[in-house]
Amino acid sequence: MAFGRASSSEPMVAPHPPAQRRPLPEGFLDRLAARFGDALQTGEAVRAAHGASETHFATMLPDAVIFAGSTQDVVDTVNLCRAAGVPIVPFGAGTSIEGNASPVHGGISLDLTRMDRVLMVNAEDFDCVIEPGVRREELNQHLRDTGLFFPIDPGANATIGGMASTRASGTNAVRYGTMKDAVLGLEVVTPDGRVIRTARRARKSAAGYDLTRLYVGAEGTLGIITAITLRLHPIPETISSAVCAFDTLKGAVDTVVQAIQCGVPLGRVEILDALQIRAVNRWSKLDYAELPTLFFEFHGTANGVAEQIELVRAVAEGNGGGEFLWSNLPEERSKLWRARHEAYYAAVNLRPGAIGWATDVCVPLSRLAECITQTRADLDTSAIPSTILGHVGDGNFHVVFSIDPAVPAEMAEVEALNARLVERALAMDGTCTGEHGIGLGKQHWLEAELGDAVEVMRTLKRALDPDNLFNPGKIFTL
Amino acid sequence: MAFGRASSSEPMVAPHPPAQRRPLPEGFLDRLAARFGDALQTGEAVRAAHGASETHFATMLPDAVIFAGSTQDVVDTVNLCRAAGVPIVPFGAGTSIEGNASPVHGGISLDLTRMDRVLMVNAEDFDCVIEPGVRREELNQHLRDTGLFFPIDPGANATIGGMASTRASGTNAVRYGTMKDAVLGLEVVTPDGRVIRTARRARKSAAGYDLTRLYVGAEGTLGIITAITLRLHPIPETISSAVCAFDTLKGAVDTVVQAIQCGVPLGRVEILDALQIRAVNRWSKLDYAELPTLFFEFHGTANGVAEQIELVRAVAEGNGGGEFLWSNLPEERSKLWRARHEAYYAAVNLRPGAIGWATDVCVPLSRLAECITQTRADLDTSAIPSTILGHVGDGNFHVVFSIDPAVPAEMAEVEALNARLVERALAMDGTCTGEHGIGLGKQHWLEAELGDAVEVMRTLKRALDPDNLFNPGKIFTL
Repeated sequence: MAFGRASSSEPMVAPHPPAQRRPLPEGFLDRLAARFGDALQTGEAVRAAHGASETHFATMLPDAVIFAGSTQDVVDTVNLCRAAGVPIVPFGAGTSIEGNASPVHGGISLDLTRMDRVLMVNAEDFDCVIEPGVRREELNQHLRDTGLFFPIDPGANATIGGMASTRASGTNAVRYGTMKDAVLGLEVVTPDGRVIRTARRARKSAAGYDLTRLYVGAEGTLGIITAITLRLHPIPETISSAVCAFDTLKGAVDTVVQAIQCGVPLGRVEILDALQIRAVNRWSKLDYAELPTLFFEFHGTANGVAEQIELVRAVAEGNGGGEFLWSNLPEERSKLWRARHEAYYAAVNLRPGAIGWATDVCVPLSRLAECITQTRADLDTSAIPSTILGHVGDGNFHVVFSIDPAVPAEMAEVEALNARLVERALAMDGTCTGEHGIGLGKQHWLEAELGDAVEVMRTLKRALDPDNLFNPGKIFTL
Repeated sequence: MAFGRASSSEPMVAPHPPAQRRPLPEGFLDRLAARFGDALQTGEAVRAAHGASETHFATMLPDAVIFAGSTQDVVDTVNLCRAAGVPIVPFGAGTSIEGNASPVHGGISLDLTRMDRVLMVNAEDFDCVIEPGVRREELNQHLRDTGLFFPIDPGANATIGGMASTRASGTNAVRYGTMKDAVLGLEVVTPDGRVIRTARRARKSAAGYDLTRLYVGAEGTLGIITAITLRLHPIPETISSAVCAFDTLKGAVDTVVQAIQCGVPLGRVEILDALQIRAVNRWSKLDYAELPTLFFEFHGTANGVAEQIELVRAVAEGNGGGEFLWSNLPEERSKLWRARHEAYYAAVNLRPGAIGWATDVCVPLSRLAECITQTRADLDTSAIPSTILGHVGDGNFHVVFSIDPAVPAEMAEVEALNARLVERALAMDGTCTGEHGIGLGKQHWLEAELGDAVEVMRTLKRALDPDNLFNPGKIFTL
């Protein structure tokens, strides 16, 4: 889940120590200007736009922004920065959730949104090659005549480079997987300024270490992605959406788990709790019953989809599900999913002018009902509005808090609620983040989750980026 | 594709330089014996069984074999070997193809087949946790009452640890993916003797670097896998098999590509060329028409499978396909797939007493027909019998050569044919191995395929295994 900006309020100071900023070496900006001209920008507004967080993290200004237009621009930036010991933080749509692109150590914010070309579409191979600044909606627009689509959908219209870097997933990961499954290969600029290609265009390979998946999810700390080969999927013959409200959160979750156990290949399945439905109704002017609700999407042949719907309807009925409102009209479907995508804005704006904090955990499916119901009970002990929504087929859910910036104690309260949520997920053998990444916000929990494995990660980081210049301070401290 | 031993002939000397073997340090075997007792074996027969290759590589004896029974056994082996500077080569079923488990530098062959417990089956979560010595057939036997199965099927009854280490796939990767998709998490013993866990049991995670997929396919060069969390799938309601012969290889390949483009979720689809069919007919006492042939398996609901078969039948007809022989009787299905699994023995034994050489490449689907037809034409310039078979839905195919050990020139001729095959695949933006791994046999081609990316791999290896003791000499030389 990645979001657009929820409100124009000033973000509050994040609960993280101020980073060590080194002043830029003498003459460094002049050297950059000589190489990049107008593509180097140092104005306050541009720097602020590249240092702000989508959620509750304090703005941290980069010293300058470079707008890369080519792999060579990235290589030259890397070489100039390495020579000067200046950090580089890759930047896409800026829709990450955990402060993943905040320049905590200053340096250069390397904006890749001008690298937005679709380089190649190979329809017969179900793949395409794109630059990292291509956004997912534009990619699907570009593909519309090929009969193929790129399924990963984190909500926001993120750049594909950013999605690869945070190992994003979203509403239809239950059917199509996450960015680790969608990315077939990468072109990457390494901290020593080399351009490597991690894989050929074959659909699978057993040739050496899986560098593709080492860079996917590395949040720009090991290399800068400059091209991406993506796996595409045929647009299903039939797509139908359905909405079903339940008496209880548990009934909704059990329905999904049982449907998956029956082998139903759900295209998407999202849970929204009662308060989230109220928020969506207000924000998107809808009139769903304010109950725990599932949003489904079914993909397949006409007969196949009809079969899936029948089966899921029967399972839902056995779990306290109400009427099954379904549609295969594209305009109704897009209204439904637009409402889902705006759920974050809807939730944050339960209070006008509020600051949003979005967190995500993922647990084994068998523990999901328990995790969600315990979390809802814990959230209900607080007066701060919060909603639960998520990708229930993956065991992945989000909590969105609507924080009053005028009441500083609320931030501490949300911190405590978030800590208890993550501890609950870890105790159920889950993860502290299903799809947002570690960034700044989940570093403590990464250690709790994976222990000594984090030492192995540090070893990799030190080996590949010995000067610690690529998005330093993210995922872990060295 | 992994195989059982094809013949009892002595393997020929492989075209690889003899490795540097260091003598074991004084008293080292005594220290091992004190710790491991009978689980340490140094007899010639046991060492030969752990140093032989499934295919054409020369036998390379380890100095001793340790049969590990627990993670602690692995840790103690690693610590004793590190202190003494002795190499460790993990060993499973010994069914790898490219010399992946040959102890080229001597040292300890660490046999993990006694670690064969299924530790946990979580049916509601569609996962299980197993030790690395569990074999895939035994795992599916163990799972048979749960309604779930483990789909990855490389042919041989390999250990799951070995399959993870070579990033194996096989006949139904087209539907269920490869070991990179099947493995949710690993327990790994690192070269410094730490036991790490790469992931929790959630179905997805964005928590830090993807260590799971770094170790999957690393061929034991970075760590030794001691437990595996696997993703399982519901057994389909209906499974049907079908066989269809074609006038041309191209017609068969085009059928598969077009079926996939129509969105048919093929369960398995295998191609066998005319000579491979002749070999299968002889070996498995069958009577298929000796033409290029597709073996299909369809998974789904009864109606869904019927729809799939209708669609594929129509596509096949348009590509010169003959009668569509299909069956959903389990005994006929298993006869069909047993024949497919024995295809390697069948091919090698086209000449009695022959040595087998199996190679594999993978290309983009759009190039597959061209790659296969050019390869068949090139193979036909040689008098050495060779067959083409493979996982056509992935763009992945194998060539099996049946080499007369009495004619040394044949080995050189096969080397040249293999080299041209790999060069052809690379020129089509394919990979030098879709599923066998690099091992000893494909090292030259790894460099040709990925260039400077191999330097990044070397950096990772040096960082994680600074003494180069974990399966040294594999994938690349340092």
